[in-house]
Amino acid sequence: MAEAMRGLKRTHRCTEVSNQIIGETVTVMGWVQKRRNLGSLIFVDLRDRSGLLQVIFDEDNIGTEGFEKAGSLRSEYVVAVVGKVAARSGAVNENLVTGDIEVIATELRILSESETPPFPIEENSQTKEELRLKYRYLDLRRPDIQRNLILRSKVATRIRTFLAEEGFLEIETPILNKSTPEGARDYLVPSRVHPGNFYALPQSPQLLKQLLMCSGYDRYFQIAKCFRDEDLRADRQPEFTQVDMELSFVEVDDVIEVNERLLADVFKEAIGVEISLPIPRMTWQEAMDRFGSDKPDTRFGMELKDVSDVVKNCGFGVFTGALEVGGTVRGINVKGQGSMPRKKIDALVNFAKDFGAKGLAYLAINEDGTYKSSFMKFMTEEELSKLVEAMEGTPGDLLLFAADKNKVVYDVLGNLRLEIAKNLDIIDKNKFEFLWITEFPLLEWSEEQERFVAMHHPFTMPMDEDLEYLDTDPGKVRAKAYDIVLNGTELGGGSVRIFQNEIQEKMLHILGFSKEDAYAQFGFLLNAFKYGVPPHAGLAYGLDRLLMLMVKADSIREVIAFPKVKDASCLMSDAPNTVDKKQIDELQLSIKSFKEKESENS
Amino acid sequence: MAEAMRGLKRTHRCTEVSNQIIGETVTVMGWVQKRRNLGSLIFVDLRDRSGLLQVIFDEDNIGTEGFEKAGSLRSEYVVAVVGKVAARSGAVNENLVTGDIEVIATELRILSESETPPFPIEENSQTKEELRLKYRYLDLRRPDIQRNLILRSKVATRIRTFLAEEGFLEIETPILNKSTPEGARDYLVPSRVHPGNFYALPQSPQLLKQLLMCSGYDRYFQIAKCFRDEDLRADRQPEFTQVDMELSFVEVDDVIEVNERLLADVFKEAIGVEISLPIPRMTWQEAMDRFGSDKPDTRFGMELKDVSDVVKNCGFGVFTGALEVGGTVRGINVKGQGSMPRKKIDALVNFAKDFGAKGLAYLAINEDGTYKSSFMKFMTEEELSKLVEAMEGTPGDLLLFAADKNKVVYDVLGNLRLEIAKNLDIIDKNKFEFLWITEFPLLEWSEEQERFVAMHHPFTMPMDEDLEYLDTDPGKVRAKAYDIVLNGTELGGGSVRIFQNEIQEKMLHILGFSKEDAYAQFGFLLNAFKYGVPPHAGLAYGLDRLLMLMVKADSIREVIAFPKVKDASCLMSDAPNTVDKKQIDELQLSIKSFKEKESENS
Repeated sequence: MAEAMRGLKRTHRCTEVSNQIIGETVTVMGWVQKRRNLGSLIFVDLRDRSGLLQVIFDEDNIGTEGFEKAGSLRSEYVVAVVGKVAARSGAVNENLVTGDIEVIATELRILSESETPPFPIEENSQTKEELRLKYRYLDLRRPDIQRNLILRSKVATRIRTFLAEEGFLEIETPILNKSTPEGARDYLVPSRVHPGNFYALPQSPQLLKQLLMCSGYDRYFQIAKCFRDEDLRADRQPEFTQVDMELSFVEVDDVIEVNERLLADVFKEAIGVEISLPIPRMTWQEAMDRFGSDKPDTRFGMELKDVSDVVKNCGFGVFTGALEVGGTVRGINVKGQGSMPRKKIDALVNFAKDFGAKGLAYLAINEDGTYKSSFMKFMTEEELSKLVEAMEGTPGDLLLFAADKNKVVYDVLGNLRLEIAKNLDIIDKNKFEFLWITEFPLLEWSEEQERFVAMHHPFTMPMDEDLEYLDTDPGKVRAKAYDIVLNGTELGGGSVRIFQNEIQEKMLHILGFSKEDAYAQFGFLLNAFKYGVPPHAGLAYGLDRLLMLMVKADSIREVIAFPKVKDASCLMSDAPNTVDKKQIDELQLSIKSFKEKESENS
Repeated sequence: MAEAMRGLKRTHRCTEVSNQIIGETVTVMGWVQKRRNLGSLIFVDLRDRSGLLQVIFDEDNIGTEGFEKAGSLRSEYVVAVVGKVAARSGAVNENLVTGDIEVIATELRILSESETPPFPIEENSQTKEELRLKYRYLDLRRPDIQRNLILRSKVATRIRTFLAEEGFLEIETPILNKSTPEGARDYLVPSRVHPGNFYALPQSPQLLKQLLMCSGYDRYFQIAKCFRDEDLRADRQPEFTQVDMELSFVEVDDVIEVNERLLADVFKEAIGVEISLPIPRMTWQEAMDRFGSDKPDTRFGMELKDVSDVVKNCGFGVFTGALEVGGTVRGINVKGQGSMPRKKIDALVNFAKDFGAKGLAYLAINEDGTYKSSFMKFMTEEELSKLVEAMEGTPGDLLLFAADKNKVVYDVLGNLRLEIAKNLDIIDKNKFEFLWITEFPLLEWSEEQERFVAMHHPFTMPMDEDLEYLDTDPGKVRAKAYDIVLNGTELGGGSVRIFQNEIQEKMLHILGFSKEDAYAQFGFLLNAFKYGVPPHAGLAYGLDRLLMLMVKADSIREVIAFPKVKDASCLMSDAPNTVDKKQIDELQLSIKSFKEKESENS
């Protein structure tokens, strides 16, 4: 049975006890990490959020009853200990903040007992994630996850402090919204008062933050919960947190400037990393040409090279065929991998095929200068050496080529580059390489929908110099859009917004909205635009991803207190779950088909 | 057509322009509040979030074309103005921060035109709230609402800074949760992946914050969105914001201590109001006895007096009858209202009946010491004068009595007291009177459900000295619960939690849960309690209410950017709304009955 805390007041967290207060009496409370009996002494490592502290029980100080109680302690018992701080009698433990001291207990209370946990509470757990998530309340005791969540709190506080000092107002926007198209699938919330009608959880506060600019709030931010009912990946959750902002009377440079200072401030204050400013910028086109990606990882080279001109008259039909239909031939040079075994090369070819390549042409330069290649028989010696020269190939290099439509070539080589870097382990994990990507295309052609879709969203402003193409050649129009990329991950993105109703309506027309549809969906925004809109722009970061990268975790689940798994369920609470029929009836709904959940939490 | 901002950069917000920079050239941007033509000059009041600034256009400085453009300006046009700061040529306007200066424009751009707004953008709008909410993006331009939202941002930032400095971690808990009973109606979110299953939006992060204590986070807070699908009132919204916290290894006094400092800090920093600490405390029983309310407004007296003993043998059957069935007779003394007209007294009687009174007995003391009373014929002179003496009645006073079961007497007189104070306008609106209410009953008997229900929630710890009654007389048990009351409004509340599984299970048993039900609903909490739980306690404030009281508004809608109306709809976005059949189909739902919404947003 639990003892009461009555009469005791904690004086220190574990690591607040230090050699500065040797001789003083302290009261500490926490969890038993470990108990050891050594001769006539009992040693207990006491744990709280701050760290570990060694407590020693000897019968002289604690009395017979207390000593017996200490002997009954097991892992994860919650105890209160009164005792005297002393210099450590045994060897100093350099790995602990409190490694040079210990507490000689004079009173012990067992506040709460514990069954044996289903897995040990320890750093870098080897426990299966499924079990950890089922017992998330125990998993959250592990020091590495505690560090992550403590950092997350610090980062959020720092972001808020910085933005408040820069004149941003934090304004809360609703969670219960109207469902709008364009974008991912909404989570819906049935209305009881208006049967058959639904709210939607926000995918982002996009429209509302633009309205706040219309309303004159000038600089808005919010650390906002957003929702997408899409299938999950390692860096996706049904609900995620965005650092969302919008500014009035600004252009691209203003947004970038304040955000560079924000990032530098947060990285310095939270994890002591200096980011040198300004952060480099690269146009979307350059990023695609050099890295085959709009979120290039610039911690390593292996850049793409366009060799279309070099091979345009060669005898290799795969190359010339691609060029004839408007495609390109590009390659990457994998330095020093000329002797990669055939089996590994084949694996890369298969990897490339997963990204839509029909194949992957390779040319290895042997140490003696001869070649080993999938296509050398189709080319003359001179054509080959020109190609090698264009690729800056030297003995020992492996050259890989893709020939296809640009989109496919970028995708294949961009991903291949990352895969090879991962396989060869050539990425410096201690680097934080930031990069702005600018001048995105405004629109993308959707083969599936046979219409243009917005690359960012329908409210993105075209670049001034491309406005003229909006009517004549929409695919050519670049946008005042920008993404911030860190180590090859898109951390955030934003744009200058359209603030003129004429352009906004034209944009919605291009996206296939009739005027009626447009007003039905975005009416309150289009109407607001009739009453004086300031030029405005914004940006949003994925806070979960930011934290994941800061702590170098593999999954955003490591930086979220109560994450969901791939099927969007919570293994701990068993949500979603069945509800009373009465609740469904009140919403005037009926369930057409019920599927028992496979994951069970017993 | 809108002009571009290109080449211009705002240098100052309106009220940042001051007499310190006379002679300098500034670039300001904002909305036209008002244009006046005076002879050869055009005056424009320019508005942004900071306030107003006078801009003067004369043809010499702005040129002919610019002058014509200035002449075309109308209210709510968005403009950029370049000009020189000058001392005001006309009379200084003491009401404006910028009242002693003006800007002589040398360049004007019209960034956005505006139609005539449906209502004027001005302080203390007389416009009907329905229209204001439909055009909320215009309503939000009004200076009083802007001040409210700016204050809200400041308060939230201050709360976060304070709590972070006190060692609290802000930890986000999910919005997509499991539906649990006990409490208000949940908003449900159908699951697409698990048809027939639902998430629930959180009514509060109660269980999760308790788990975070189990997990060792020690001090948690969150400014959290909470949801209740209940009918709305002036101080209720379907979604509301709570400042939610939980602390480990603490007792009632610790929670109160840190929260008193928090409140004092926020009121001082945000609105310059000093709260003297400690805040008074009153037990629930005393609050009921003296004020007939568990959230007494202590800005005025008119306290309840129990006169049961005085009247127990009197001849007035209404009084003695109530006493005989275990009730009480209590009164309030409305000082100086002895001459209240009969019609007004009748209105008070009817008001009392709305709160369950069968009637209301009154006794007016005339200036000459004689009485006018509804019951004097049933009492002797002596009985009457003893009653008057007990009520400290003096000539000119009006005494009002209720006789009934305690619950009814409290409710009637508590509300009557407030109603009379409002009618007589005797409350000092500049006062901020805080009060802690403590020692709440743990349980309330529900006539409807014929069982005990938790007064706070099922996780509230009984007071140590009452633990013994849990089995024998549960209704007698007081809880370690506390509410913080400001000016008669419950601002927040909390409790020490049960941290022993034995007591928790007993509590759930008293509330009518079978062990299976308890585990089905709260299993993850009860399971977590098996692995070492620290004593913990918490508190949550309604942030919307706090702000409403700080700015002395009548409704929380005045401190929420995008509020909903009584039927839980948003007049601006028209949420909730109908969605594509495809969306419903994907959720495997069908709509049994569809009701067209009455409110329409066209």
